[in-house]
Amino acid sequence: MLNPQLYTDLYQLRMMQGYFHAGMDKTPACFDYFFRQNPFNGGYVVFAGLETLLEQIEALCFDPESLEYLAQLGFAKDFLAYLKGFRFQGDLLAVPEGEVVFPNTPILQARGHLAETQLIETFLLNTLNFQSLIATKAARMRDVAGERTLLDFGLRRAQGLGGIHATRAAMIGGFNGTSNVYAGKQFDIPVIGTMSHAWVQAFESELSAFRAFVNEHAKHSVLLIDTYNTLKQGLPAAIQVAHEMQQQGQDLQGVRLDSGDLAYLSRKVRQQLDQAGLQHVKIVVSNKLDEYLINSLIQQKAPIDSFAVGTRLVTGHGSPALDGVYKLAQIGDKATLKVSENMAKTTLPGKKIVYRYLNNEGQLYADAIGIDGQSAPCTIHHPIHALQQCPLKDLKHEKLLKTVITKGKRQTQKQRLVDIAAWSTQRRKQLDPEYHRFNHPHTYKVGLSQALKQQRDQHLQQHALLPC
Amino acid sequence: MLNPQLYTDLYQLRMMQGYFHAGMDKTPACFDYFFRQNPFNGGYVVFAGLETLLEQIEALCFDPESLEYLAQLGFAKDFLAYLKGFRFQGDLLAVPEGEVVFPNTPILQARGHLAETQLIETFLLNTLNFQSLIATKAARMRDVAGERTLLDFGLRRAQGLGGIHATRAAMIGGFNGTSNVYAGKQFDIPVIGTMSHAWVQAFESELSAFRAFVNEHAKHSVLLIDTYNTLKQGLPAAIQVAHEMQQQGQDLQGVRLDSGDLAYLSRKVRQQLDQAGLQHVKIVVSNKLDEYLINSLIQQKAPIDSFAVGTRLVTGHGSPALDGVYKLAQIGDKATLKVSENMAKTTLPGKKIVYRYLNNEGQLYADAIGIDGQSAPCTIHHPIHALQQCPLKDLKHEKLLKTVITKGKRQTQKQRLVDIAAWSTQRRKQLDPEYHRFNHPHTYKVGLSQALKQQRDQHLQQHALLPC
Repeated sequence: MLNPQLYTDLYQLRMMQGYFHAGMDKTPACFDYFFRQNPFNGGYVVFAGLETLLEQIEALCFDPESLEYLAQLGFAKDFLAYLKGFRFQGDLLAVPEGEVVFPNTPILQARGHLAETQLIETFLLNTLNFQSLIATKAARMRDVAGERTLLDFGLRRAQGLGGIHATRAAMIGGFNGTSNVYAGKQFDIPVIGTMSHAWVQAFESELSAFRAFVNEHAKHSVLLIDTYNTLKQGLPAAIQVAHEMQQQGQDLQGVRLDSGDLAYLSRKVRQQLDQAGLQHVKIVVSNKLDEYLINSLIQQKAPIDSFAVGTRLVTGHGSPALDGVYKLAQIGDKATLKVSENMAKTTLPGKKIVYRYLNNEGQLYADAIGIDGQSAPCTIHHPIHALQQCPLKDLKHEKLLKTVITKGKRQTQKQRLVDIAAWSTQRRKQLDPEYHRFNHPHTYKVGLSQALKQQRDQHLQQHALLPC
Repeated sequence: MLNPQLYTDLYQLRMMQGYFHAGMDKTPACFDYFFRQNPFNGGYVVFAGLETLLEQIEALCFDPESLEYLAQLGFAKDFLAYLKGFRFQGDLLAVPEGEVVFPNTPILQARGHLAETQLIETFLLNTLNFQSLIATKAARMRDVAGERTLLDFGLRRAQGLGGIHATRAAMIGGFNGTSNVYAGKQFDIPVIGTMSHAWVQAFESELSAFRAFVNEHAKHSVLLIDTYNTLKQGLPAAIQVAHEMQQQGQDLQGVRLDSGDLAYLSRKVRQQLDQAGLQHVKIVVSNKLDEYLINSLIQQKAPIDSFAVGTRLVTGHGSPALDGVYKLAQIGDKATLKVSENMAKTTLPGKKIVYRYLNNEGQLYADAIGIDGQSAPCTIHHPIHALQQCPLKDLKHEKLLKTVITKGKRQTQKQRLVDIAAWSTQRRKQLDPEYHRFNHPHTYKVGLSQALKQQRDQHLQQHALLPC
C-alpha cells in the first residue's frame, strides 16, 4: 500500500475534522516518535522503515473513492472538501535508516500543522514499529552468525501482508537473501530457493527427484535430504548426484536439513560429504531457528554454512511488537507533555535536539536530548532518577536527527536497501559487544540536558500535575 | 494484494518449472492443509481467511511485469510462456470459514495438477495461518467478555500491512468493531474512534478540549480522561461536559481510561458518574489488554462496558504464528507421506474424507479422518498412540469438508463477514466450555479410521522408512 489515506485509526480523521472546525488545523505542532523499551530483552534497536514511510507521506492524498466512504461514515462536507486538497506540507527530521537507537531518544520528529502531523501518526507507527522490530531481530541473528549466510524463509508464517516489509527489514538487519519473490522484486533483494518435501515425494525415489532437480537447476542445486531418512537415504542419494554432476563438470551447491538434531546431523553430513570429496557442497539448515538456536549451533561447532530462518524472524518471536509511540511535544508556542502515574511514561515537552556522543575509540557512548537550538551539553541527567548524572566532557558528538522532508518536499535521495544495510552494519560495529549481549546487555546512556530537565520538571510543577 | 502471483517462495516457481520440464506439471496431486498444535495453549482454533484465499486464487495470474522479473531471475522462456496462460484449474475443499477446528484434522484440501496445487502453497499458508491465529485470539477474548463490547485498536502495532487482515479475522472471532478505517471499508466493518492524548494537549484545558470534541462529534463522544489526572481532573471535566450536553438534550456516550489500575479507576469513575446522574455514560478501557487481563477485570467486577484491544490482539501475543502446513498426500494414483523421526510430524497419506461427530446434545464430539469415499467409521484410532481408540457408535456425524472450487470455478457465493462471524459464534457455542478453558483445556478427539491407519502404517513399513 503506497497511499495510506485510509490505513489509519478513525480517530485521527475525527480529530482532524475537529481541529479544522475549531480553526486549529494550521496551528504549529511538533510530535516525537520514540520507544520505551528494547525488544527481546536486548540492548539496542535497529531503526528501519524510514524509506517506506517517506514514500507513504509523498503518496498521501485522498481519492474520490475514499472520500465517498468517509462521507458515508458521517464526515462533514466542508472537511471532505478540505481533505480533497490535502497533502503533507510539514517537516520531518529523522535518524538515518539502519541507525542503532535506544529507549527514550526521539528517533523522528514531525513538525508542521496540527492536522497534518496528527494524521500521519497511525501509519507512521505501523511502519516504523514493525520494520524496526524485524531489523532488530535480524541483527541479533547476524550478531551471532558471523560471516555465515542468513536467509529469510518466513513468508508462509508471516503475519499476512506483513511478510512484505518483514523481508525488507531483515535485509537491513544483515540478512543475505530471501525466498520472498514479491519482496525481491519490490526492494531489489537477492531471492533464493531450494526444494520442498513435496518435490521429493512427487518422484519415484529421492535419487530420481534429485537428478531431475539438478538437471533443471544445476546452478541453484540445494537438495533437501530429510524427506525419509537423512543419513541412510537422503545424503547417499545427494552424494551420488553430486558425483554424477562432477562428471559433467558441474558442482552440487548444497544440501538442506529441515528436521532432527541439526548439530548432530550437520556434523555427520559434513563428514560424509568430505569423505566423498565434496568439500565444496554447502550445508543449509532450517527449522525453528532463532538467534539462540543459531548461537547454540555455532557454539557446538556445527559445520553449517547457511541458516534459513522463518517464523521466528518475520514475526519477531519473543517480542512481537515494538512499543514505539508518537507524542505531541509542542502546540503553537507552548511545550506540552502527557503526565502519567508511571514516571517512565511521562513525555518530554517541547521541540528538541538530540546529540550522540562517541568515545575516543569512535564507539557510541551516549545520547543527550536537549531543547531545540541548544548546543551539546557537557552533562546529561537520567530521565527518571533525579540524582543520576553522566559527564560528557571532551567527547566527540554529532547531531542525530537529519532533515528528511522540508515543507512536504523530500530533501534526501531515495536510498538503496543495500546501502542502508551497509550503513547499519557499520553502526552496529560502533556499538560495543556488551550492548549486543543477549543476557542482561549493557544499558546505553540516554539522558536529558539540564535545560530540558528543568523545562519538564517546571511543567509538572507549574500545572500541579504531579499525580498522587 | 489481490493477485498473489509473486507473493510466494521462489522454490514454488523453481519446482513448477521443474515439473513442467519433466512432463509432470499435469500429474494429479492432492495436498492437505492442517496444523499440529493449538496456539496460546488453547483448546481450539477458529478457521479464518478462506474468503481472502478464494479471492486470491481467482485473481491469480502472471502479468507482463512479473514475467519480466522472473525472466531476470533466470526462468526459462518456455516456462514463462506457460505461466502467461496459467490459471488455477483445480478443486478446493474446505471447512466453512469461522468453523472451530483442531490439530491434525485436514481443514482444506487442494486437488488438481501438481504444478497448480504446488504453486498456491505459500500464499495459502500466509493467509490461513495468520487469519486463523487472530480469529482464535479474538475468540478467546470473546469467551471471557460475555456480551461486552470488544474493539480492535491495534493498527499502530500491527505487523506492517498484516493490520489489514488482522482486523478482518478479529471480527470472525467475535469483535464488534475496529479503529482501522481501511479494513472498515474493505470488509464492511463498523469503524469507531475516540480521541488521543494529543487532542487534549492541543487545547488550553481538558474542559475546553472536551467541549470542542462533543461540539463536533456529539454522537461519538467518548472522552479520554487520563491525560493529566484521571479522577481529579479528567473525570470532573467530563462530568461537567456531560451535564452541559444534557441541557442541550444530548447524551455523552462514554469515557475512556488508557492507563493506571483499570479495575480501581473504572469503579471510581462509575461511582462518580452514577452520583452525577450519568448512568448512561459508558466506560471504555484500553492499555495492554488481552484475554487474561479482560478475564481478571471481569472477575474483579470492574464496571467496564467496552474493551479496546490493540497490540496483543493483532500480533497474536503469546503465539505469534499458527504452525499450519500444506503437505502432499497423493501424487498420481500413489498415496504419499513425509516421514519424520518425530511421529507427530509424519504426515497422513492419500486423499481423505473428514467426518465430525456430534453428541446427543448436539455438541462437537470428535473428528474422524478416513480414506476418501469411506463411510463414517464407528471407531477412531489415536494418530500416534497405537493402542488408544475411541468408539463413535450411535453419534450423529457430518462431512466436514465442503467443495468450494471445482475446476478453478468457485462453487460458493461470496460470504459477508457478518455472516461468517455469526456462524462462528454458533459453532463455538457447540464446543463445550472445557475446550474454551485457558488452563489445560480438554483435548478434542481427532482420530484415524482403521483403514487410514493401516494405509499409513503399511507405507511406513513397506518402504522400510521407519527411522531408527
